[in-house]
Amino acid sequence: MCVMHSLIHECLHGVPSEVETIARDEGLVPRQAARAVARGRIAVLANPVRPHRIAAVGEGCRVKVNVNIGTSGQRCDPVLEMEKGRAALAEGADALMDLSTGGDLQAIRKEILTLDAPVGTVPIYEAVRRAGNVTDVDADLLFRVIREHCKQGVDFLTLHCGVNLQALDALKSDPRIMGVVSRGGSFHVAMMLSSGEENPLYAEFDYLLEILADTGVVISLGDGMRPGCMQDAERHAKATEYLTLGRLAKRSLDAGVQRMIEGPGHIPITQVGYNVKMIKELTDDAPLYLLGPLVTDIGAGYDHVVGAIGGAIACMNGADFLCMVSPSEHLALPDVQDIIEGTRVACLSAHIGDLARDPKGHYMQREVQMAEARRRLDWDEQFKLALFGERAKAVHVRDGETETCSMCGDLCALKIVDKLLPAPDVTPKKEE
Amino acid sequence: MCVMHSLIHECLHGVPSEVETIARDEGLVPRQAARAVARGRIAVLANPVRPHRIAAVGEGCRVKVNVNIGTSGQRCDPVLEMEKGRAALAEGADALMDLSTGGDLQAIRKEILTLDAPVGTVPIYEAVRRAGNVTDVDADLLFRVIREHCKQGVDFLTLHCGVNLQALDALKSDPRIMGVVSRGGSFHVAMMLSSGEENPLYAEFDYLLEILADTGVVISLGDGMRPGCMQDAERHAKATEYLTLGRLAKRSLDAGVQRMIEGPGHIPITQVGYNVKMIKELTDDAPLYLLGPLVTDIGAGYDHVVGAIGGAIACMNGADFLCMVSPSEHLALPDVQDIIEGTRVACLSAHIGDLARDPKGHYMQREVQMAEARRRLDWDEQFKLALFGERAKAVHVRDGETETCSMCGDLCALKIVDKLLPAPDVTPKKEE
Repeated sequence: MCVMHSLIHECLHGVPSEVETIARDEGLVPRQAARAVARGRIAVLANPVRPHRIAAVGEGCRVKVNVNIGTSGQRCDPVLEMEKGRAALAEGADALMDLSTGGDLQAIRKEILTLDAPVGTVPIYEAVRRAGNVTDVDADLLFRVIREHCKQGVDFLTLHCGVNLQALDALKSDPRIMGVVSRGGSFHVAMMLSSGEENPLYAEFDYLLEILADTGVVISLGDGMRPGCMQDAERHAKATEYLTLGRLAKRSLDAGVQRMIEGPGHIPITQVGYNVKMIKELTDDAPLYLLGPLVTDIGAGYDHVVGAIGGAIACMNGADFLCMVSPSEHLALPDVQDIIEGTRVACLSAHIGDLARDPKGHYMQREVQMAEARRRLDWDEQFKLALFGERAKAVHVRDGETETCSMCGDLCALKIVDKLLPAPDVTPKKEE
Repeated sequence: MCVMHSLIHECLHGVPSEVETIARDEGLVPRQAARAVARGRIAVLANPVRPHRIAAVGEGCRVKVNVNIGTSGQRCDPVLEMEKGRAALAEGADALMDLSTGGDLQAIRKEILTLDAPVGTVPIYEAVRRAGNVTDVDADLLFRVIREHCKQGVDFLTLHCGVNLQALDALKSDPRIMGVVSRGGSFHVAMMLSSGEENPLYAEFDYLLEILADTGVVISLGDGMRPGCMQDAERHAKATEYLTLGRLAKRSLDAGVQRMIEGPGHIPITQVGYNVKMIKELTDDAPLYLLGPLVTDIGAGYDHVVGAIGGAIACMNGADFLCMVSPSEHLALPDVQDIIEGTRVACLSAHIGDLARDPKGHYMQREVQMAEARRRLDWDEQFKLALFGERAKAVHVRDGETETCSMCGDLCALKIVDKLLPAPDVTPKKEE
């Protein structure tokens, strides 16, 4: 196999410049970051053909947030999608996925790739659009599309390699109310049921790895069998796919291809912890990328909050990368305001996850600084330290700019106690 | 002790009508519900002097949501507070607390008590207002106010009995950045520091219990020492108060007085589970009422989401009653829109908690019905089953009323798979 750009191989012998960059961003020791990349514990989203802000996902890294944008057949407005992409990045998103299915897909992608962030795609969408019909997609077309995305500068590709005949058998023998809710997953199921043949992404996985090893693009092993409702969470298709993804994760690493794993969709809150831990176990702690998880199915309109609850618990148990769920999930393509709200809440969940993953680390310093600013009733400092400072300020000043807030006024507990008990000096704790 | 109306004592010998009511509401066996009340595992919020919709909190009951309303010195508009109360109940709140500190407190409370819901108060607020100065509050005034609240029809009283000299010692010897953030807690700290004497609610706890045993009012043992920031969560004051509340919970039950425990405020997500379990252990599984918990301090403006994340995890570990945190928490007195947003998100968190507390119970049925409606693309049924049906519908129809949604259009996974794989009949599972 001719490896032109395998970060994994480079990391065996030194510290490539991409790893220097992410080590600086994350506060990691460069040599240790390189080892984590070599062991597949960190994935670096950095297609070398496109210069842009890169990002790392995994062990020791800040939890990252991805935001999905893209046209649909029903609502195709590429200018709006660019606006959504910019809004997401302005609100703190670390990466974007272009999930476009309507309009000129290559032109839209080219435009989105001008944004200064890692970008992911799902090549099967374009293959289906080009074939005209899902059952007319063949392996050659799919691999051609994948190659094109890599060359165009996409950083990570969701490929549903685990949606194979074995998973389909599990789906049939242990059926689910919602069947398959992953769009890409449903395409591969339709292709297998139509042809009777194995999913080419699974059957020709070595060939796929050759394409990717040549390009430095990260494979995100898609969870096409993710459950689509609470009741489906315990059915066998999901865990069957976990096992497959575990084997494919190892084959990817052995071939020098960086990979992430995509995790479950709709699962009860009590099952989030063990699902995350099981995926981590089966994949030798590969970086885990989650949509949600959604921990109830009746929250439509507030699914961004449902996802934030599931996501925070997932991070506490080891998840590394959260995909924003928009308030319009299950209802409509998000608009710009949905993207803003959803991104904020996802970033909040990721920060809570960071505190859980590294309780004594530098994330806690900002918490301590905020507590000190609150104790001093130093509002300007609070707005500076807050994740959503402008919104916080707008709420605070609506009742006038006063020393305390309009909730308690002069009966402010902090004001009362501050006179009686001195604030401790916590400065030494900041140096820990 | 002359016990005029002790639900606990009545439950030792039969099933009082209030318990019949809550057993019907909750789907419990009346005799078992009565035993749970007698053992202090369920608290019934039902002051007999005021006819209104009652509610139960605790073992086997749906997680309840309280919403705080009330004037402040800086923003005193009793009409607005009534509007907020009605909005909260319309959005699904189970109880209200009147935390007014501005204006004619008795008149405002009288008005709020006309609403058809359990109402709680914090009597120390009124005592401070009547004394003019916190250090002028004496035991007689405080007990007089408590008696008046009970007679007026208040259903539960937050009383910071655990803010005693021992807790104050813990606060001094193991200081916290934020000191005391509970408003009531800060009043008692100020009183103790001024007088050098024990908190009368602790010193004369037996007398307090006599007042309450006469009235059927529930005591909510306040968490005046709750931590006010992440960094303070591990300091000793909090756990010192837990131990005191555990002893007072037993004394309340022995005196025939129903009680709840109030739990921690700001704590990292990794500490939520063991804090809840520890309180439950120390209080012999008394009903647990939580504000938040807030699992980060830098989310101002989105603290309703921060509280929803902490609340769902708290419920998963045994919490019974969530106090809504508004989006304006730490910034300003909430307006009506804050109350609506906050109540919705708190109810969502409580529902997720219900699923966790009773995974095979009837909460799951609505989830199953939603999944079936989604599978059928039956939008009207989805809006009927959704927690926020009107909002969900408004989002869905903005791109036109179509068979699928504007996210995927004709590439809808459900539509593709539905043609290929039959939906399983899950009806038997609904009968479980």
